[in-house]
Amino acid sequence: MTLAAKSLSTVLAEFRSSSPTPGGGSAAALAGALGASLLAMVAALPRPRAATDDETRRLRDAGERCAELAQALEALIDRDSEAYDQVMAAYRLPKGTDDEKAARALRIDAALKAAIETPLDVMRACASAIAESEVVQTFGNANASSDVRVGVELLRAGLRGARLNVEINLDALKDRAYANRAAAEAARLTSNESGGGGAPTGPS
Amino acid sequence: MTLAAKSLSTVLAEFRSSSPTPGGGSAAALAGALGASLLAMVAALPRPRAATDDETRRLRDAGERCAELAQALEALIDRDSEAYDQVMAAYRLPKGTDDEKAARALRIDAALKAAIETPLDVMRACASAIAESEVVQTFGNANASSDVRVGVELLRAGLRGARLNVEINLDALKDRAYANRAAAEAARLTSNESGGGGAPTGPS
Repeated sequence: MTLAAKSLSTVLAEFRSSSPTPGGGSAAALAGALGASLLAMVAALPRPRAATDDETRRLRDAGERCAELAQALEALIDRDSEAYDQVMAAYRLPKGTDDEKAARALRIDAALKAAIETPLDVMRACASAIAESEVVQTFGNANASSDVRVGVELLRAGLRGARLNVEINLDALKDRAYANRAAAEAARLTSNESGGGGAPTGPS
Repeated sequence: MTLAAKSLSTVLAEFRSSSPTPGGGSAAALAGALGASLLAMVAALPRPRAATDDETRRLRDAGERCAELAQALEALIDRDSEAYDQVMAAYRLPKGTDDEKAARALRIDAALKAAIETPLDVMRACASAIAESEVVQTFGNANASSDVRVGVELLRAGLRGARLNVEINLDALKDRAYANRAAAEAARLTSNESGGGGAPTGPS
């Protein structure tokens, strides 16, 4: 049974339990799914103010994109836990003979790549949703402005949390070219994290 | 049926839907519950390193406290949506006569106070869990260090998101003494948000 199919209360209890999965990677994906969902909600709210057809279309497109990203992030909640389990399974492979050692090393590297690619996907989706937040904040219902800002806070937490999960798997990876590309993309995605809904949350 | 009892997938779909609840306040409480749960998980993991009895006790106490805070935050997910619905219900009360106007104003102020107190409770719980993160980061299993940092990211997003939900209800409140106290507490809780698990997430 996937985490997404379990009750929210059960999911939170599984995060609390002493089993290492679900862990921070799945939590980052869930934060992103929640943030993107809030943006989709605001984009779907009735707008009391008049709006041009172009504004209405841009808002609707941004909302649809956020809803898609939210669903992609929802799928990544479970995928991250599976990727972690695959890394652990690879490390447990026998290493008695040279052949076993070689096969184990290959499996570890493949599993680590999946465990890097999954939080990178979380980062990509969170960054894409943050990019949509400007349109949602500008054209969405003004009464829901704080929902956009909460959504951006959650997407940023998802982005940074996923980056931590990219980085913890980079050092052990033998394929350094891949590791360097992943590190560069993670840094780039984090540096672009500002968005229209992301105004400072301190007192104005 | 409470949000906590629904499947995670259903909860995310309800956040995405064009109904204003659940909204940013419930999302902030959920982010906090997730962050506190991660800290409780790390505190409960086996520790490969030797530890003194005092360290073991401090870690266990911090873990139990985070688990309690996570469950309090879980309850606040639904409470925030209920508080919002009460505010909307109060604004819909009749205001034809002077008596009706007076009764409506009283109900609005009472509902607004509950809609301020709920995200303030979210802020208090997130700040308390962030305060525990230092012990969890110092004495918890070092392999789960990134889980602590993701937990703190989520707790900070919950704290900031809840503050936005405190602030949106302050202006409409007639009881200015209460509003000023709430604003001051919200500012204080946000200024204390640093914690041991909250080291910078950039490359080291």
